[in-house]
Amino acid sequence: MSLTIALAQTNFRVGDIAANIKHLAAAAILARDEHHADLVVFPELCIIGYPAEDLLLRADFITAANNAIYQLADEVEGIALVVGFPELADGKLYNSAVVLHQGVMVAKYRKQALPNYGVFDEQRYFAAGDRPCVFEFNGVFIGLTICEDVWRAGIIEATREAGAEILLTLNASPYQSGKSQLRESVICQQVKTAGLPLVYVNQVGGQDELVFDGASFVADAQGKIIYRAREFAEDIGVVNFVGGHPIAAACAQLYADVASEYQALTLGIKDYVAKNGFQGALLGLSGGIDSALVLALAVDALGADKVEAVLMPSRYTQAMSNEDAVLEAQALGVKYHVIPIEPAVAAFTGMLADVFAGSGKDTTEENIQARCRGTVLMAISNKQGKLLLTTGNKSEMSVGYATLYGDMAGGFAPIKDVPKLLVYQLAKYRNSLALVIPERVIIRAPSAELAADQKDEDSLPPYEVLDPILERYVEGDQTAEAIIAAGFRPEDVARAISLVDRNEYKRRQSPPGIKITSRAFGRDRRYPITSGYRGI
Amino acid sequence: MSLTIALAQTNFRVGDIAANIKHLAAAAILARDEHHADLVVFPELCIIGYPAEDLLLRADFITAANNAIYQLADEVEGIALVVGFPELADGKLYNSAVVLHQGVMVAKYRKQALPNYGVFDEQRYFAAGDRPCVFEFNGVFIGLTICEDVWRAGIIEATREAGAEILLTLNASPYQSGKSQLRESVICQQVKTAGLPLVYVNQVGGQDELVFDGASFVADAQGKIIYRAREFAEDIGVVNFVGGHPIAAACAQLYADVASEYQALTLGIKDYVAKNGFQGALLGLSGGIDSALVLALAVDALGADKVEAVLMPSRYTQAMSNEDAVLEAQALGVKYHVIPIEPAVAAFTGMLADVFAGSGKDTTEENIQARCRGTVLMAISNKQGKLLLTTGNKSEMSVGYATLYGDMAGGFAPIKDVPKLLVYQLAKYRNSLALVIPERVIIRAPSAELAADQKDEDSLPPYEVLDPILERYVEGDQTAEAIIAAGFRPEDVARAISLVDRNEYKRRQSPPGIKITSRAFGRDRRYPITSGYRGI
Repeated sequence: MSLTIALAQTNFRVGDIAANIKHLAAAAILARDEHHADLVVFPELCIIGYPAEDLLLRADFITAANNAIYQLADEVEGIALVVGFPELADGKLYNSAVVLHQGVMVAKYRKQALPNYGVFDEQRYFAAGDRPCVFEFNGVFIGLTICEDVWRAGIIEATREAGAEILLTLNASPYQSGKSQLRESVICQQVKTAGLPLVYVNQVGGQDELVFDGASFVADAQGKIIYRAREFAEDIGVVNFVGGHPIAAACAQLYADVASEYQALTLGIKDYVAKNGFQGALLGLSGGIDSALVLALAVDALGADKVEAVLMPSRYTQAMSNEDAVLEAQALGVKYHVIPIEPAVAAFTGMLADVFAGSGKDTTEENIQARCRGTVLMAISNKQGKLLLTTGNKSEMSVGYATLYGDMAGGFAPIKDVPKLLVYQLAKYRNSLALVIPERVIIRAPSAELAADQKDEDSLPPYEVLDPILERYVEGDQTAEAIIAAGFRPEDVARAISLVDRNEYKRRQSPPGIKITSRAFGRDRRYPITSGYRGI
Repeated sequence: MSLTIALAQTNFRVGDIAANIKHLAAAAILARDEHHADLVVFPELCIIGYPAEDLLLRADFITAANNAIYQLADEVEGIALVVGFPELADGKLYNSAVVLHQGVMVAKYRKQALPNYGVFDEQRYFAAGDRPCVFEFNGVFIGLTICEDVWRAGIIEATREAGAEILLTLNASPYQSGKSQLRESVICQQVKTAGLPLVYVNQVGGQDELVFDGASFVADAQGKIIYRAREFAEDIGVVNFVGGHPIAAACAQLYADVASEYQALTLGIKDYVAKNGFQGALLGLSGGIDSALVLALAVDALGADKVEAVLMPSRYTQAMSNEDAVLEAQALGVKYHVIPIEPAVAAFTGMLADVFAGSGKDTTEENIQARCRGTVLMAISNKQGKLLLTTGNKSEMSVGYATLYGDMAGGFAPIKDVPKLLVYQLAKYRNSLALVIPERVIIRAPSAELAADQKDEDSLPPYEVLDPILERYVEGDQTAEAIIAAGFRPEDVARAISLVDRNEYKRRQSPPGIKITSRAFGRDRRYPITSGYRGI
């Protein structure tokens, strides 16, 4: 008995059911006509995109999604479709998968394991299914599962016991560094235990804070990967099953760590700009490493002609910063403007002179400079319809080393979840492809240049110390005691933790950015602003 | 058999376990010594405050909360305490209530109904209990329940069947307009059906976007309220039970609608300022109704000496706006500054002249003015350690009629969930107590004054039309068809819905504000920014 299964690793726009249906139908027809597939598997909830969040509470949206299933069943003939959708039944909503063939529903499965941690809120919307689903197709018994189902023990097993010979899994599994490897290792172990081949189809593309990396795969009954789709791109793969056994096909290589993070960031930018209809992107280019990296990412995501840079020097900006910023713009072929901020700073200084009379200088004056830059950038963004990218990294977001409405102003924060040390690695990686960031930018001491001779290390521990402390505290939920016991100086730990604790109010108003670590700020980490908890 | 039960309607700071323990102990001792209570009931999760959000994922935090229970048991003698805490048992976390008496745990209950909708995320943190809890105390059988338990059918019934003669309920039930009445009506109906008297203890106070209104009560077995604590204030109430029947005590009156909303808003401001350690608050005073209301709320919450106003006229500001703003500041006895924004606007105009050469005027120029004001206000906030209050209302937040980093700049947005028509009602209510807002501010047509002769109605439907459309769409999830069928003009509905759909990006970066409706923006309404869904 032979069966050809296509894996449709597709990129959808959340909420755009009409467009998604068209995209699904086109992919199904391609799988049928070009790849001669008998059955094509799509990602989890592909009719509506993932995650649709509170759109799932709208009755009109759910009705449209349910109607779309019937439309799809009528529209595509000659191939069976396995499609994810939010199923409304008896007043409950399920995260379901349906098999459509020759105009009818052949089978339907309701997700049993509903993740409600990290970025996931599925129990806010869905009721859980309570049984496996196995259907016969071309003489083969096929089991259906959805995403979290195959991470937990028991569900694969129960599906096998219900008679499945092949397992299909529809997924919307978001990227984080090392996720592909983790995913394959956890799931293949389960596959091996159950002794069932598994077809794993993931969605791909950026959606607000999340990037879905694709990397769909097929594992044989021994848990060996015998096919893998590309990462970070749409892909339609095909695997033949003979007598229930998959025949090995071409495996795309997984990107190495830093390269995969770079790919995730570019895809996140590209899709945010495209799916939100911006004309392009712009950013403030300071001559520092963060904005240099964001410029390179934006150009790689959108093309140089869609990106604009603005240099906004002040009296504290060193000559080499301006020089390096110009070199970066030139190396990437990006249009740039130079707009000194002194006139605006002088205006505010004058306007505030009476109110501030008698008080000394403090960070207020630094913040004014950053906010003058934010205002200039937002004005250009407003005028041109370009998305303003902020350039702050995760280390800064963690400790609040950034100005609200200043350098934090913008619609999207590409490196918000990238710690400073990783910013350097990504810059070096990009330079290894072609030199676009001057070496001096990488080796000089980082500075906000908001006061004379200012360096980040004047107010923060060195990033070699700060970053691992932050990772342990923010991502690992470790205590100060545990971090100190791991060899960090008590004063560094105290400084870092205290800053993290006190800066939730800034993070709450920061633009969304791309999750690449195990815990990003945003939907992934939900802290109260008003809080008496002190980690130190 | 006689039993005196105290209801400790207390205000806690989320995360501050040490302070909460002290506060609990002091309230318990007061209940024992002043009110001669045998048993005192505290709110849900009172050891840690509600909602603690992702602090609940920190092992050190949970350990501290569990240890605090033992500390409390040792510390307070001569009265039984019923206390809520996050119970860690067998690797699972429960939302639990414990009865402490004479140094030991007399009983323990695990919440069965875990809300995971609206502002609630309890399934992110907690496992559900699976059985009722009844304990004997002074010869009476008492059942324990927690918040959502008594809203759902079945749990009160099961607790009665387990032998309860009196029911205690620990709550953290947040305010929304009409909530006290709703709460009493739903719960008293259940009480009546079960035929059991019920002691309902709610927390009180502001926590980020939520205000807990208190209004704790006791209902007799017929579902009649025989005692009610005050709304919006700490209160320790006492009710005697003789032979299992509560003896009627004094019932505090519930505030009427607009008065209750006013109280909720002042308490929300007061607690946000106090619990976050600000020196006071400041705001931009435009002469319009929104900032006039926020000024009055801030003064009522904090006192006139803690509030400062800043007038920032431009060439588009009418003389009467300045006059009225001064009158408001004077009527409330608030210090104010006048800082014209023209110098900053001129500076930015000059700086951007080259980049903008050849393009016409649009909202960019309006946004620059708003951002100059935001920068001035934030500078004063930074310098003085005062919280900047934004003055935007819910109608504006819904349709994006506000400038990011401009009038949206600030740490707290008191009237973010107050629709414009309700702003007028609240202003009139405040004037009914004492005239603080000039009549002209209430009757003149609202204007952002960012361009010559500008009125809100130039770009938006009149608020009498807009507000009910927004309520139906945002709070009611109604479709455009349904709203039109209810009698609204298709073009008004289309305009309103389209603006709501497209402005999620602004709302995502807005400061937190106080929830007073059935669905506020923020944790209560979680929409994707990138979305192809169009309600029209």
